[in-house]
Amino acid sequence: MAILERNDTGAVATLKLNAPDRLNALSDEMLAALQAEFDALSGDSSVRAVIIKGEGKAFCAGHDLKQMTAGRQAEDGGKAYFQDLFGRCARMMLSIRSLPQPVIAQVHGIATAAGCQLVATCDLAVAAEGTRFGVNGVNIGLFCSTPMVALSRNIPRKRAFEMLTTGEFISAETAAELGLINRVVPEMLLEHETATLANQLADKLGSAVKIGKQAFYQQLEMPIEQAYDYTGDVMAQNMLHRDTEEGISAFIEKRPPNWHQ
Amino acid sequence: MAILERNDTGAVATLKLNAPDRLNALSDEMLAALQAEFDALSGDSSVRAVIIKGEGKAFCAGHDLKQMTAGRQAEDGGKAYFQDLFGRCARMMLSIRSLPQPVIAQVHGIATAAGCQLVATCDLAVAAEGTRFGVNGVNIGLFCSTPMVALSRNIPRKRAFEMLTTGEFISAETAAELGLINRVVPEMLLEHETATLANQLADKLGSAVKIGKQAFYQQLEMPIEQAYDYTGDVMAQNMLHRDTEEGISAFIEKRPPNWHQ
Amino acid sequence: MAILERNDTGAVATLKLNAPDRLNALSDEMLAALQAEFDALSGDSSVRAVIIKGEGKAFCAGHDLKQMTAGRQAEDGGKAYFQDLFGRCARMMLSIRSLPQPVIAQVHGIATAAGCQLVATCDLAVAAEGTRFGVNGVNIGLFCSTPMVALSRNIPRKRAFEMLTTGEFISAETAAELGLINRVVPEMLLEHETATLANQLADKLGSAVKIGKQAFYQQLEMPIEQAYDYTGDVMAQNMLHRDTEEGISAFIEKRPPNWHQ
Repeated sequence: MAILERNDTGAVATLKLNAPDRLNALSDEMLAALQAEFDALSGDSSVRAVIIKGEGKAFCAGHDLKQMTAGRQAEDGGKAYFQDLFGRCARMMLSIRSLPQPVIAQVHGIATAAGCQLVATCDLAVAAEGTRFGVNGVNIGLFCSTPMVALSRNIPRKRAFEMLTTGEFISAETAAELGLINRVVPEMLLEHETATLANQLADKLGSAVKIGKQAFYQQLEMPIEQAYDYTGDVMAQNMLHRDTEEGISAFIEKRPPNWHQ
Repeated sequence: MAILERNDTGAVATLKLNAPDRLNALSDEMLAALQAEFDALSGDSSVRAVIIKGEGKAFCAGHDLKQMTAGRQAEDGGKAYFQDLFGRCARMMLSIRSLPQPVIAQVHGIATAAGCQLVATCDLAVAAEGTRFGVNGVNIGLFCSTPMVALSRNIPRKRAFEMLTTGEFISAETAAELGLINRVVPEMLLEHETATLANQLADKLGSAVKIGKQAFYQQLEMPIEQAYDYTGDVMAQNMLHRDTEEGISAFIEKRPPNWHQ
Repeated sequence: MAILERNDTGAVATLKLNAPDRLNALSDEMLAALQAEFDALSGDSSVRAVIIKGEGKAFCAGHDLKQMTAGRQAEDGGKAYFQDLFGRCARMMLSIRSLPQPVIAQVHGIATAAGCQLVATCDLAVAAEGTRFGVNGVNIGLFCSTPMVALSRNIPRKRAFEMLTTGEFISAETAAELGLINRVVPEMLLEHETATLANQLADKLGSAVKIGKQAFYQQLEMPIEQAYDYTGDVMAQNMLHRDTEEGISAFIEKRPPNWHQ
């Protein structure tokens, strides 16, 4: 059984973390499998939305602490391995951002440490009632420094600081209020509601969503004047897409667009 | 009838978008009229607060798609026109930020695409119950890339991403919770509540509000040490204003200030 | 009686602003006393959490306006004094951020102007029901430009702008919703709840919290790729701490860690 299963339905690809006995930990193997799928998806215009979910009782419990501990046997005490590991993990997270398709986290059970980072990194997130979110590395003396990069860009800073230093979990309802996730649904509707959202995104013009997603993250890190210069060019180019011309014409003529995607 | 009506009451100037048959679209003419008013207001110290509102059933429905479509007739397919258009629109939005007076959006009906951007760009916003906000360009294949510059600086990023990629509308209540607007009021009180807020601002010392508003947006884009260096100078200069000296003396002496504005 | 009292219980240091007749104003003397304590605490690894609270009916009412007014007697009208004052105040605020220990504001009564800035600057804040928060300098013609540096990094910008330009106060409940504070508790539980939170933090591995707090604020101001490069190094180094190795081993072996702190 593969550690990561991919299942495509229409234009929606679903990636299932499949190491339930390890609470879907982001082991070396899991990171490599995710990276390989994102690399493949990045050039696949037939997929217009991606879902990430987890098998078993947890969405994802973060790094694989046993594997990390084994890494200490190296002559340098694991230093080179740890640096490489966090580098590979960050690269995987950044691949989600740079993917042309929107990525939705479908979250249940728990999402902790780098598992919470994975939720924060996805463009959108839907969680089941009862899901709990935490960055609790501080409890074992390993501050969640890389997870906080994503977390602190999602929620107000005092609430992020509290989660990071107390190690306490928040509920799905609180996560939605703070902005870590988009919505909470009853557990039995989680699959259905996430699929509905993914299909809604997949029905949009993929080329428009692709340039929009890329521009979204780029402009967020720019001073506002530069952000307007950049996005003004993006919109002007978007206007020249054949399918966009058709979309606008159809709107004016009050008919559905006939897109070529 | 002018496409943009200006009406001054005391120290409050109200600009009314007046193209109700086009849902107050930001046509070339509307953009030019707004820019002209902002240019005039920028040097007018007798005005200490500005309200922007819309005539008819919508606050503003964004760009004028028919006019944009007509622009495609040019030899370059409209490329130069679109770049110029988005540049003029961004310049108008940035003029609201750089205006010395606080600008309040008085919103009703719908505020979509660049109309939603206009709300996000204003310093403050009051909306009537029932108002809906959306950045729904994605539905016609034109991602709301320039509106997202303002929107993503107002609300949590996952919620902004959701609005931009699903094209779905949010209610006034949700807009207030997320930070896109300051408050929601019953529609029959919208005019009154906005005027009350504007008058409250106009009663402040205009020179202090002017330097404060400018510093607000400047320091937001600075690293914190630089922000403190900058605002420390701003406050030291503010202390030396004659009217500020009078304001502080009056406060210590428990009497109303006698300002010269 | 000292203007600032320090009281240590276990690994928690409590600093009490003690100028109740001046609503604990940040006078020259108070700023100097706070700076001296922060300088001492910055090298004291036996303290693992800090609480700041106020004596009397207010947490802190901001700068000392009478002292500032006296400063106008200088030949330059106070210019050099004001610049120096705001510089010293900013240095004190930045010292809270750079302190290795988490700092909790224990807030009651009112927190206004630079007093509200002090709350916004602390890493965490707990407030009593009935506490009110404001940046009301605009009412006397002195815009709260330095307080807004901290405030605007805590709450959504339209709400920050509203507080700064209207001078109106917000309740503790609103402050919690917006992210200015972490939680609201009944006044009679304020001391107890804050101490509980401080003890919870003090029980963590101090070296992990120290590197985490430093990294938290550093990475917030970086583009995301740089933030990941930086925090990846921080985590790799954290992994090599002896106490962190023990913490992880203890977790895997399902026993409490035996830390040397």
